[in-house]
Amino acid sequence: MSKIKNISGFPELLPEQKLIEDKVISIIRKIYESHGFQPIETPAVELLSTLSTKGVVDKEIYLLRRAKEDSTQSDEGQLALHFDLTVPLARYVAQHFGSLTFPFKRYQLQKVWRGERPQKGRFREFFQFDIDTIAVDELPLACDAEIVSAIGKVFLELALGEFTIRLNSRKILFGAYKELGLSEEQQKQTITVVDKLDKIGVDGVKKELGAAGLASNTIEKIVELTKLRDKLENIEDVLSSPALSSTLCSSGKEELMTFSKLVSKSIIPNIKIDLSLARGLDYYTGLIYEVVFNQFPEFGSVCSGGRYDDLASQFINKKLPGVGVSIGLSRLMELILSKDLMKLESKTKTKVMVAVYSEDQRPKCNEIADELRKYGVTCEVFFKSPKLGKQLDAAASRQIPFVLFINPETGVYEAKDMSSKSQQVISSLKDWAKSLCSSN
Amino acid sequence: MSKIKNISGFPELLPEQKLIEDKVISIIRKIYESHGFQPIETPAVELLSTLSTKGVVDKEIYLLRRAKEDSTQSDEGQLALHFDLTVPLARYVAQHFGSLTFPFKRYQLQKVWRGERPQKGRFREFFQFDIDTIAVDELPLACDAEIVSAIGKVFLELALGEFTIRLNSRKILFGAYKELGLSEEQQKQTITVVDKLDKIGVDGVKKELGAAGLASNTIEKIVELTKLRDKLENIEDVLSSPALSSTLCSSGKEELMTFSKLVSKSIIPNIKIDLSLARGLDYYTGLIYEVVFNQFPEFGSVCSGGRYDDLASQFINKKLPGVGVSIGLSRLMELILSKDLMKLESKTKTKVMVAVYSEDQRPKCNEIADELRKYGVTCEVFFKSPKLGKQLDAAASRQIPFVLFINPETGVYEAKDMSSKSQQVISSLKDWAKSLCSSN
Repeated sequence: MSKIKNISGFPELLPEQKLIEDKVISIIRKIYESHGFQPIETPAVELLSTLSTKGVVDKEIYLLRRAKEDSTQSDEGQLALHFDLTVPLARYVAQHFGSLTFPFKRYQLQKVWRGERPQKGRFREFFQFDIDTIAVDELPLACDAEIVSAIGKVFLELALGEFTIRLNSRKILFGAYKELGLSEEQQKQTITVVDKLDKIGVDGVKKELGAAGLASNTIEKIVELTKLRDKLENIEDVLSSPALSSTLCSSGKEELMTFSKLVSKSIIPNIKIDLSLARGLDYYTGLIYEVVFNQFPEFGSVCSGGRYDDLASQFINKKLPGVGVSIGLSRLMELILSKDLMKLESKTKTKVMVAVYSEDQRPKCNEIADELRKYGVTCEVFFKSPKLGKQLDAAASRQIPFVLFINPETGVYEAKDMSSKSQQVISSLKDWAKSLCSSN
Repeated sequence: MSKIKNISGFPELLPEQKLIEDKVISIIRKIYESHGFQPIETPAVELLSTLSTKGVVDKEIYLLRRAKEDSTQSDEGQLALHFDLTVPLARYVAQHFGSLTFPFKRYQLQKVWRGERPQKGRFREFFQFDIDTIAVDELPLACDAEIVSAIGKVFLELALGEFTIRLNSRKILFGAYKELGLSEEQQKQTITVVDKLDKIGVDGVKKELGAAGLASNTIEKIVELTKLRDKLENIEDVLSSPALSSTLCSSGKEELMTFSKLVSKSIIPNIKIDLSLARGLDYYTGLIYEVVFNQFPEFGSVCSGGRYDDLASQFINKKLPGVGVSIGLSRLMELILSKDLMKLESKTKTKVMVAVYSEDQRPKCNEIADELRKYGVTCEVFFKSPKLGKQLDAAASRQIPFVLFINPETGVYEAKDMSSKSQQVISSLKDWAKSLCSSN
């Protein structure tokens, strides 16, 4: 008998936890679909050359090798597991360019893998749930606003607690940094350092910027900038700050103003302009955003995204600007489960258990169950025929709300409501099924 | 610019094909859930030692290696991608034994990987959609009947064409083979050869059995046995065949009789007892079955399963008999798409496109869209504001059924039905949304 060893970083849920995950997924999917995002799924496996732009393997990638072969490389090239859903999207859009309609709005829920060293608290396999809108040549700000609106609605409907959508503009950051005399290289470096503000604090940021060779009065101004934070409603106050007065900031400011008029009204109270938001990733060029839970700031963002000018130039000779956002579903589930943020009515979706008095009754019980299913009721027939009490106990332990049985003396159907303990005669399965479905 | 190379065996669908796959998935899931099967998801990655029972790597397994490391092996052991969902289920049940309720009925839809040589027509990554019922110590035939019933309902509801559930009993086969004097080893060998009947024909079977050392009159009897095929309704005729008269066959015959009384009536016309069905896999011990489309016999089975005595003895010191079935979803999709077996009303789920006369109108258009979404209507706002004709063309090409716009002169909402070309004034978005939702 081989012993089961836990491998860390590969999360696995119990069935009742998986039901919660499925509920979260169905809420997210419903909102994405309500905005016209279409599902796609790409293989988990890509060529390493696809995943490593410019030939550099700078990600923690898992390579594949056939167990039956010695060489890691076949003629077709090295295969590897994707580490995000953005590079596969780029390859997908380039490969199927002629078959897609633009703007191409897609959602994608898949596992991704990071070939990290086993380490507590780090996932090596996890779900991401992404939406992106890709256009040819030009992508209006309406698309940024739609993405943020959809995300806001997701977190409103998930109802996991107060949340904030932190919003910023890379154009404003780059404009302000340029005004301070920073070179392009220094601007990028500064983004990377400011992105770590929550982790390393103001002193840490100052230290790292100093080590990067910036003058201390420049550093002070960069730090001052990160303090500009306010509700979206007060956008005009924020944007009229002297720190953003340079004309280099003006296109970023205009974008934020336009955005504020296009984003869904329902989520405006949740949006905060936050000049300290920088996002580490290289490819963002415009608006950037992330979602944090007010109650759990230490947990960091569960969702982040932004605008990028150029999705797929490594694969296709087209200008394809895009905007997207990614929900770290497995991380979100970790938070939901550890803080018990979402409760289901029951551990199972089964609404009715049909009890079986004796094996003679079973064919009839099966027919009853099939009829209930026809009316939309999820239904199980108990797999054996022990005493009724045992079957009721089994239903109770699984939180199945109703047990139906055929009275062996009278032949009538009776249903027991497991929470009220009341019992009723069922004269019409159809009517009863209707009442069960409408009470959902 | 790096060229995109196709890697064969990793299927990828266009968005409109993915919609069909999603519809197939939702039908299967609905029926599985209606029977009380619970969802689980296991990591794609397992320890190689988990996947290779008895230390033998006899499957085409993909091993993982971190790109940043030289060694394929870390301290935790070699990681690999799972090649089916049964071994991970066994590990899952053993690992979480104390947290599960038995009988444990689960469904699982996941990708699996086969590290095969690239080869036309062979998938290396594909979806499987499995259900299994696992019990402790003893699993009644009611569970086999439920699994076959669920599968039958799936294919009835998918409505892809006439199908047959081929049904047999390994106990009958082993009993009949033993009666013919075959050793246990020869019995297993014969199963493997008979399983290839459809591929290699009667002559091929005779030749291989001859090569295995069986006497020609024994071979004749084995071949005769494969000719016993009839509708489930005629089960008594089939089972009264002299070829099955040995008492060694009697427990298998009894099981089939009991099964025939417990399986859902709706699918009985689709079931055929077929003594030529053998199934290649080693671990089946009782009833076995597979689903074929009558119109496409050459395509082989799209779904198969059976009873096994012992799920997880390699991981846990318990007797865990089980019964399960697996739908080869990616193969099924290949058939559906290549033969055009399932048509959707539209290439998109979007019901309404809100046209935008001018960018000034956009915030109002967004509000209209949000209101429609609130009433359950999937809805998009056109991303730019070109002439209305262009926007109507865009909606038509994507098969969006309705376009709503604000008459720029009167301010009233008007909706154009894109198929009838009729136009109507919308005085209440709520009422209109209701009519759209009820016409689904």
